[in-house]
Amino acid sequence: MSQPASSSISAESISELTRDTNYGTWRFQKGWKPLHVVDAEGCWFTDDAGKRYLDMSSQLMCVNLGHKNPRVIESIAEQARELPFMGPAYATNARARLSAKLLELLPAGLEKFFFTTSGTDANEAAFKIARMVTGKNKIISRYRSYHGSTAASIAATGDLRRWAMEPAGKGMGFVFAPETNCYKCPIGHTYPGCNIACADYIDHMIRNEGDVAAVLVEPIVGTNGVLIPPPEYLPKLREICDRHSVLLIADEVMTGWGRTGKWFAVDHWNVKPDILTTAKGITSAYVPLGLCATTKKLADYFEDRYFSHGHTYEAHPITLGPAVATIEEMQRLALVERAAEMEPYLRERLEGLKTKHVSIGDVHGIGLFFAVELVKNRTTKEPFNTMRDKVEGKPLVVDQIAAKMMADGVAQQSWVSHFVIAPPLIVTKEELDFGIDALDRHLAIADALAVQS
Amino acid sequence: MSQPASSSISAESISELTRDTNYGTWRFQKGWKPLHVVDAEGCWFTDDAGKRYLDMSSQLMCVNLGHKNPRVIESIAEQARELPFMGPAYATNARARLSAKLLELLPAGLEKFFFTTSGTDANEAAFKIARMVTGKNKIISRYRSYHGSTAASIAATGDLRRWAMEPAGKGMGFVFAPETNCYKCPIGHTYPGCNIACADYIDHMIRNEGDVAAVLVEPIVGTNGVLIPPPEYLPKLREICDRHSVLLIADEVMTGWGRTGKWFAVDHWNVKPDILTTAKGITSAYVPLGLCATTKKLADYFEDRYFSHGHTYEAHPITLGPAVATIEEMQRLALVERAAEMEPYLRERLEGLKTKHVSIGDVHGIGLFFAVELVKNRTTKEPFNTMRDKVEGKPLVVDQIAAKMMADGVAQQSWVSHFVIAPPLIVTKEELDFGIDALDRHLAIADALAVQS
Ligand SMILES: Cc1ncc(COP(=O)(O)O)c(C=O)c1O
Ligand SMILES: Cc1ncc(COP(=O)(O)O)c(C=O)c1O
Repeated sequence: MSQPASSSISAESISELTRDTNYGTWRFQKGWKPLHVVDAEGCWFTDDAGKRYLDMSSQLMCVNLGHKNPRVIESIAEQARELPFMGPAYATNARARLSAKLLELLPAGLEKFFFTTSGTDANEAAFKIARMVTGKNKIISRYRSYHGSTAASIAATGDLRRWAMEPAGKGMGFVFAPETNCYKCPIGHTYPGCNIACADYIDHMIRNEGDVAAVLVEPIVGTNGVLIPPPEYLPKLREICDRHSVLLIADEVMTGWGRTGKWFAVDHWNVKPDILTTAKGITSAYVPLGLCATTKKLADYFEDRYFSHGHTYEAHPITLGPAVATIEEMQRLALVERAAEMEPYLRERLEGLKTKHVSIGDVHGIGLFFAVELVKNRTTKEPFNTMRDKVEGKPLVVDQIAAKMMADGVAQQSWVSHFVIAPPLIVTKEELDFGIDALDRHLAIADALAVQS
Repeated sequence: MSQPASSSISAESISELTRDTNYGTWRFQKGWKPLHVVDAEGCWFTDDAGKRYLDMSSQLMCVNLGHKNPRVIESIAEQARELPFMGPAYATNARARLSAKLLELLPAGLEKFFFTTSGTDANEAAFKIARMVTGKNKIISRYRSYHGSTAASIAATGDLRRWAMEPAGKGMGFVFAPETNCYKCPIGHTYPGCNIACADYIDHMIRNEGDVAAVLVEPIVGTNGVLIPPPEYLPKLREICDRHSVLLIADEVMTGWGRTGKWFAVDHWNVKPDILTTAKGITSAYVPLGLCATTKKLADYFEDRYFSHGHTYEAHPITLGPAVATIEEMQRLALVERAAEMEPYLRERLEGLKTKHVSIGDVHGIGLFFAVELVKNRTTKEPFNTMRDKVEGKPLVVDQIAAKMMADGVAQQSWVSHFVIAPPLIVTKEELDFGIDALDRHLAIADALAVQS
């Protein structure tokens, strides 16, 4: 018997109690056995049996700094002692310090901040601002996308997570454009011969729909497959939006804060969105913070108008002070540069897997942000599973492989028919090898089901 | 000159930098001069000039424990050192400990928890659950209410905060019933002769609307005036909901955690909602936590179905550990009991004001949760200002009084035409006197504008 974890609950019952009393999210409740985690350090976490796991996806692609960075931990304790909370009407040291830091690092022109406690809520704020300022209702989003879980953010989401609640009423005002996916183009083109028809299609939508407030994109689609657009795509979207006086919203919840080898994904193409939302890496998830950053021009609209938005925990000091510490640690450790430096090694290793495993259709990524996409058939590019399979609870090939990797001590995010490789930016080559070797071992499951070429 | 507040920003520029770079929320941007607060302790906070303010509304009716409780501060530091973050798929000590605590304290039957980082998001979860489980779309809310700022929560909100974004598209699926306000009944009745016709009207709505998933209420309406329903009202709503198989959702974001002299407002009438949402007092706002608690029956619906909801920062350890410490401190200090004990003194003092000031139409409240409602005319009960005035930026009488009180060192929440008196539950009689005396002094402004009786 292990010693009690708290005054009243024994360690071995913690997983069970959690399962019995908590909702398991983005899943069927049946079969949820939440692993009891007691510690974490760097790229690793530890369960109550002392077993260690390599965190190959930084939890939910968010712990960019790695677990338990001592300076960030200290900054939480310090903020708690200095001033844990003040309401959003007040200025605090933490709020000013983070605001100053953001002015340095965000793409130029993003000068007005609204602080939330999640990426979901940052997007909700973005949509409200875009709609209030333009007086228009529609927002063009893309089919393969995730933007959050509350009413508007989930309505903006293209992927399966939107479907489950639609029987009880669709969210309003979001229309979907095809995603940009040059490995498997959903509108049947081949780059570069296509002339990025997917961007022109958005122009076509804006001209036809009318009432369009904004175009919303993950500059690099995250959970849905690390889809990197061709270099002309985002500059062209910017030009289209400008031409129609439509706002461009970049959802950098996952891509921000060094993940891709730049501070923000839009920096790769030097594109300036009107609104940028972010969360996750801004604090490496140590404290719950989201951000909706806009141009001054948008904020000025509200000089003489009621800005009808806010939260009790908006600009919450305990979320802001540690964000400054997180960013300073990223700078001190040069982690943005490090993500770029590690990219070739990660790419080489994953390309190596692709030559060995017939079930890998494609490998693509940037910085420390890669997808390994599985296919039944390399010629047709047919995946093992569809989004429909996942929402209906069918067993997925990627989940079977991830379960085997977990047993080997590697926590690896899987989604529908691909893996997202996104370890903390402090990851070493040896750690990458440990993770990729586990994937290598268990891809046999998929290979056996694939059409041999 | 004061010393620098951080490496780069001078203390005197912090208010200015905040104003220049942050959205001021629920207001016109023009005229926002956020006071720079550097410390807080008990019922007081301190600005950068060393001036102290009595916090008569616990910031946003949330710091129930008072500021900078040492044990809660230590719990934040401890949680940061033990395990600041794990993703929601995992069980952690903090998650299990808080879940166990909630089973003890929540109204019986609420056994399944979904942890968010705001009250807004707790309501968003409640609406999604209610709609997914019932397969129905509509939710009946009440006109004088606030439920949060994101798309569904703001669509559920009756008050002025919903209007500003409606030109760009109304939220879907919410229909409004009249509020229950026995001082000034919006449907022209007088209690008890009315036989609580306002409850019957909800029965009428359910029968006519069809497709109703849930009835949503603040058991005691908060920001919109501390409206306490007659004792039969909530039991009757429960009975109506049961009869029509409609869910009852209690939004206890503001009323939970001792504010009213019970752990939860529904406890006053022994009513069991199907879903209870809360936030604020659950951590006394030290860390951003919200909760959507449901019956096991609702959660069981998802045993074999995809629960399509979640957040990166859901069940975030840094929000859960300090919640346990907050609740334990409330128990140690017997603050729920204390709120009930202080009620007669607060009521007596406010009733005393009413006899002196012709501009006070009514005083009503429970526990340490009171409203002082101003009227131009006691006979007609006409208020000095309407919600329309506020959203249009007209100067409000209550705001003028609150500004004078602030100059006297008393921070007092004002809203449209009333004040919400809701100090930390540790408040002393002397502190109450200090705050109420300031109100007493400045009510002259309103008295001068009122019809003398
Ligand atoms: C691109 C993107 N947007 C929004 C969100 C939602 O953020 P949160 O989970 O903090 O609400 C996520 C989360 O995974 C995301 O990846
Ligand atoms: C009754 C009620 N519901 C919901 C909310 C929204 O909570 P939050 O500000 O944490 O998003 C509030 C906030 O004042 C509230 O009073």
